[in-house]
Amino acid sequence: MIALAVDLLGADTDERELCRGALAALKRNSELFLYLCGHRDALAPLTDAEPTLAGRFELVDSPAALTNYDNPMEGYKNTDASLVRAMELVRDKKAAGVVTCGATGAVLVCSIMLLGKLRGLRPILAVELKNAHGDPLLLLDCGANIDSRPELYASFAHLGDAYMKSIGYESPRISLLSNGAEDTKGCEAVKEANHLLHSLPIHFLGNIEPTAALAGITDVIVCDGFHGNILLKSIEGVAKAVIAELEERLPDAPEAVRSALSAVREKYDYNTQGGAILLGVKAPVMKGHGSATGEAVTAMLLRMATLCQNGFTDRVEAACK
Amino acid sequence: MIALAVDLLGADTDERELCRGALAALKRNSELFLYLCGHRDALAPLTDAEPTLAGRFELVDSPAALTNYDNPMEGYKNTDASLVRAMELVRDKKAAGVVTCGATGAVLVCSIMLLGKLRGLRPILAVELKNAHGDPLLLLDCGANIDSRPELYASFAHLGDAYMKSIGYESPRISLLSNGAEDTKGCEAVKEANHLLHSLPIHFLGNIEPTAALAGITDVIVCDGFHGNILLKSIEGVAKAVIAELEERLPDAPEAVRSALSAVREKYDYNTQGGAILLGVKAPVMKGHGSATGEAVTAMLLRMATLCQNGFTDRVEAACK
Repeated sequence: MIALAVDLLGADTDERELCRGALAALKRNSELFLYLCGHRDALAPLTDAEPTLAGRFELVDSPAALTNYDNPMEGYKNTDASLVRAMELVRDKKAAGVVTCGATGAVLVCSIMLLGKLRGLRPILAVELKNAHGDPLLLLDCGANIDSRPELYASFAHLGDAYMKSIGYESPRISLLSNGAEDTKGCEAVKEANHLLHSLPIHFLGNIEPTAALAGITDVIVCDGFHGNILLKSIEGVAKAVIAELEERLPDAPEAVRSALSAVREKYDYNTQGGAILLGVKAPVMKGHGSATGEAVTAMLLRMATLCQNGFTDRVEAACK
Repeated sequence: MIALAVDLLGADTDERELCRGALAALKRNSELFLYLCGHRDALAPLTDAEPTLAGRFELVDSPAALTNYDNPMEGYKNTDASLVRAMELVRDKKAAGVVTCGATGAVLVCSIMLLGKLRGLRPILAVELKNAHGDPLLLLDCGANIDSRPELYASFAHLGDAYMKSIGYESPRISLLSNGAEDTKGCEAVKEANHLLHSLPIHFLGNIEPTAALAGITDVIVCDGFHGNILLKSIEGVAKAVIAELEERLPDAPEAVRSALSAVREKYDYNTQGGAILLGVKAPVMKGHGSATGEAVTAMLLRMATLCQNGFTDRVEAACK
């Protein structure tokens, strides 16, 4: 049995929609137990309607939502807040990880203040994308660490390695984002990081150019948060622009074409497909987009369950030593 | 009348194919005169077949090609080389700019050694893309300057401004690539550059995220060469991946769909659509891909003619003062 805490408030999406996603995850992973943090009164009718799931969840009445307008340095002390209660459940070892679609600042501060940082690490943001073949592609850091020193790239690589091993990859292929495939290409930090990564006990392939990022030739792309954010947002923006242009050129396209366009658009919209995972704190925290759907919550919970069931937290701690 | 020099050797593509593209440009811009640099014997049959173009070009017999295998520091002294002859014609004020699809190193060294750098500037690489509406979007620097100091971003902005004004934009909208739209977002160099660009007499919109790069809300994106290269190659890679996936999902798509997919693929393949323009030397040099088609040469020559006819070189010199 793996227990996770899910914060259902603080998003744009109604907590009931997010709760439906959480209940769907329970049906798809019989080993999962969930702490559902939100308004008990709003959620109880939904859980009451699922008698087969009795004993698989606990409603945690926590009626306060932390939003972008709250000062996170005050917010993390509010024990009525659903996010705070979810984090406390992890801190108190009742749950192994948190899934939330709440405000970024609040998630970051609550994670650091309530869970605590892993020794020697700063918080790191990883995003699991899908490559062109539909396989996972982990990108980290995606924006938490800007102007990273070369040594930090080594942490990114170790955490990426731990993540992929926890979802079943024996020897994850790790690459370094650069402007050329040769080891000598890159800004100064990337050139030094390349040298350092070659010395680590990981399956390091060398530099990768963005042209090849989605081609399925690597499992992890390691990069500074600024560079990773550029790549991540380019993938999102270009995929949207290409699909929108095709839709405009093909106003009367048959249903098969329209559905293929939708499927590809969704695939590259990392906002609705899953979440960013915050690493470097003492338990994994997954943060979905504020407008996440119930399906996104299902996907995040199933991914988080797989990670925790496969010893992700232990692997991360080992990687930090 | 505007005279340009075109180097027809050093590419993977046959010089006759590139020459056909050059002759097509002459037909489309009646003010254009071309120095065609290559093997006279190979080119003469093509030009002889176009009597209406007589007097609009000169064959410059220059049988040596500079390739990636040549040492460019020796190559620029080879006066039999088509690229060297093309550059000399510009140096000697017979032509206003050079178009080539030759080896990058040779183009860079010949430009610096034969044309000379503009005072206070390092060579800068700009690429003109098309945004989602099909309008020009200039991206610079695209890879010549890595780890740029903030002051260099000001040069990028001035050159981008000069370029867009030369193709008819009265007040080009200029943005700075960053990981967030707010002025405070970015790596240290970008944050300082944002501050500096706000102080310049240009139409500076502030930061732009890659998600919005193609949306048509800016005319110029200013960035460090490493960041620009990441963005440029992401656009290329993602567009290709999306189109390839759609083709795979739609093997029996009707002709209209297939042709829309091809059109969009070509639009975002900057390698075949035009060339990178080398700025910061005393005359503009446009470099197409080694596998450029004749149409790419036509497009490059027409763009270069427009730039030169509208005082681009004078504007760039004024911007450097």
